[in-house]
Amino acid sequence: MKTQVAIIGGGPAGLLLSQLLNRAGIATILVEKHSRAHVLARIRAGVLEQSTVELMREAGAGARMDREGLPHDGCNLSTAHGMFRVDFSEGCNAQVMVYGQTELTKDLYDAQDAIGATIIDEAEDVALHGVDGDAPSVTFRKNGAPQRIDCDYIAGCDGFHGASRPTIPAGVRHEFEKVYPFGWLGLLSPTRPAAKELIYANHPRGFALASMRSHSLSRYYIQVPSSARVEDWSDEDFWGELKRRLPASVAATLEIGPSIEKSIAPLRSFVSEPMRWGRLFIVGDAAHIVPPTGAKGLNLAASDVRYLYEALTATILNGDVQALDHYSDRALTRIWGAMRFSWWMTSLLHRFPDQSDFDQKIQESELHQLETLQSARATMAINYTGLPY
Amino acid sequence: MKTQVAIIGGGPAGLLLSQLLNRAGIATILVEKHSRAHVLARIRAGVLEQSTVELMREAGAGARMDREGLPHDGCNLSTAHGMFRVDFSEGCNAQVMVYGQTELTKDLYDAQDAIGATIIDEAEDVALHGVDGDAPSVTFRKNGAPQRIDCDYIAGCDGFHGASRPTIPAGVRHEFEKVYPFGWLGLLSPTRPAAKELIYANHPRGFALASMRSHSLSRYYIQVPSSARVEDWSDEDFWGELKRRLPASVAATLEIGPSIEKSIAPLRSFVSEPMRWGRLFIVGDAAHIVPPTGAKGLNLAASDVRYLYEALTATILNGDVQALDHYSDRALTRIWGAMRFSWWMTSLLHRFPDQSDFDQKIQESELHQLETLQSARATMAINYTGLPY
Repeated sequence: MKTQVAIIGGGPAGLLLSQLLNRAGIATILVEKHSRAHVLARIRAGVLEQSTVELMREAGAGARMDREGLPHDGCNLSTAHGMFRVDFSEGCNAQVMVYGQTELTKDLYDAQDAIGATIIDEAEDVALHGVDGDAPSVTFRKNGAPQRIDCDYIAGCDGFHGASRPTIPAGVRHEFEKVYPFGWLGLLSPTRPAAKELIYANHPRGFALASMRSHSLSRYYIQVPSSARVEDWSDEDFWGELKRRLPASVAATLEIGPSIEKSIAPLRSFVSEPMRWGRLFIVGDAAHIVPPTGAKGLNLAASDVRYLYEALTATILNGDVQALDHYSDRALTRIWGAMRFSWWMTSLLHRFPDQSDFDQKIQESELHQLETLQSARATMAINYTGLPY
Repeated sequence: MKTQVAIIGGGPAGLLLSQLLNRAGIATILVEKHSRAHVLARIRAGVLEQSTVELMREAGAGARMDREGLPHDGCNLSTAHGMFRVDFSEGCNAQVMVYGQTELTKDLYDAQDAIGATIIDEAEDVALHGVDGDAPSVTFRKNGAPQRIDCDYIAGCDGFHGASRPTIPAGVRHEFEKVYPFGWLGLLSPTRPAAKELIYANHPRGFALASMRSHSLSRYYIQVPSSARVEDWSDEDFWGELKRRLPASVAATLEIGPSIEKSIAPLRSFVSEPMRWGRLFIVGDAAHIVPPTGAKGLNLAASDVRYLYEALTATILNGDVQALDHYSDRALTRIWGAMRFSWWMTSLLHRFPDQSDFDQKIQESELHQLETLQSARATMAINYTGLPY
């Protein structure tokens, strides 16, 4: 097989890139190691920055999102002293859109099918070749038979555990990492959300988040120790602990229901630089991981896609051979902004095992500043709704 | 002896409180263990928040400060990528005033002498008695002879090592502390300052600060390890290291001169709560220490003085017995704001021995945000020029 851009990975990053490139007239082949059903069953993020929303529209895949998504103009922070709201309009004109990654992925698959894009799923043993030369290729097996794609460029959208990043020689890669000493236990429930907007709670017993995917689908999280095991948490225990950490007025009216999904996610920050090696460009989780606080993971993937899409079209359609040279640096500037924000929000809201009384007072003082200082809320709003490109 | 308010400590906090109370018609006696000459020889801070400036004026001690002080409308931050300015007018209408603590202390002594306030210096073995009852007193020896002051209230303005704080029972006090793993080596030189405004430098070799006390008196600092000894640093070494850490354009024109004073200060954050015990009220360094980054030490002392002055006059002159109950909480809210800011500025600008590559990237990203985001600079400006009362 032969194409202009081989895309590895059929999650939202790969699909969105494929969709944008195809609509621009650039040929792509996307290979994904899992089945489409498996990809669509994954429960992930649910808060889209305004620029992610705009990119979905630009990709011609935003219609259902615009119909069913919930635009939010603010979020709430709960502290020992009460709850206050961060109104995004105090900092910018942007909103966020609550819309599950599962739905967004489905919309992108539908849009890809509608334009007849090439997607090969259940591709085994995906490997990248010759990325530092002029004739890169991707090999894999489909139904046992070896396959090969010759291409001009490869986009590595295959996540943290994918084959793309390790293709960049270890001596070239500079990896940055911070592991947080706790995880998030999440529960998805077909219930009315606790509040109209998200509630981020700093509580002596640990962080909690009341989020949602729609008007009838709630998503809740509580901070748990790194050693916690999901099988040790009954639904009843989860709801009880959640209620203790949310504001009393919210807990009192919380609708409790069955659990559709319950899992523990570890929290860490990770970045691998550079994001380009020869003709390989890595995108999204393949290059970086953020803790979920602040909901930047999917949005950073979309931001990488935008930069790479712009660079590939500039090069392929307009002959601007410099454009691809800037991809890594442009993407990384925005990535580090979101890394900083996720780290800040994580540090602000969680209890750390080694947290001193002094550290706790600093947390409280930072929350007090947010509550009382408009410019501090503005900075949070600008970061939360998405840093400028 | 008998008075209304006994003030322990003749540094700026005690003098300013004494001056304000006397002008309001409240009787005070101030006791200081050192000689006036000793107090006046101490080299300390040099940047006054606008509210400190206003309090000096209110105390009738601001004339020389207004003539000789240097109002600053901004400060500079230097990074690996260049230097940028934080313009205070982006965040507030406030300025800061560069005016040495030594000068401010001298002005307060002169003002106290002019109104005939009672100041007893070289008071040995100062002790506080009966602070949790109705008849507190202060005892000391002057020229070997025992002395006693009976009073209604005691203001403990006697610094971290003074007798006041330990008078509050250990079981009542809650102490918060953070020790930073480095110190500041400072040098005072009768030279033209490096720049019109302060330069705070984040540099791979460590933090540096180019400050001043007047148009012809420069104050420079460089971060040194906690183990550093001042005798191991020649003036030549100091200037050489300072030049390496300042922007090249600044270093190229730096005027080098003799050293009037050279010393190492450790960096730590410390708060003791509560700040009131019966009829004892502790003020300034007696209750809290900030790292010098952001110049909050003297300003927090002035802010405590303002709160205590307001509460004492409300109680003594107007019979509002509740006013003194609020002193500790009101002062502490503002103190924790300044604690947070000093910790933030210290964390942002120094190299930490255990700093990971990730941590360093977060520092760079935070500096990048300050450089590019107006609301982030506004928040810094509001904190730097002084949080509202």
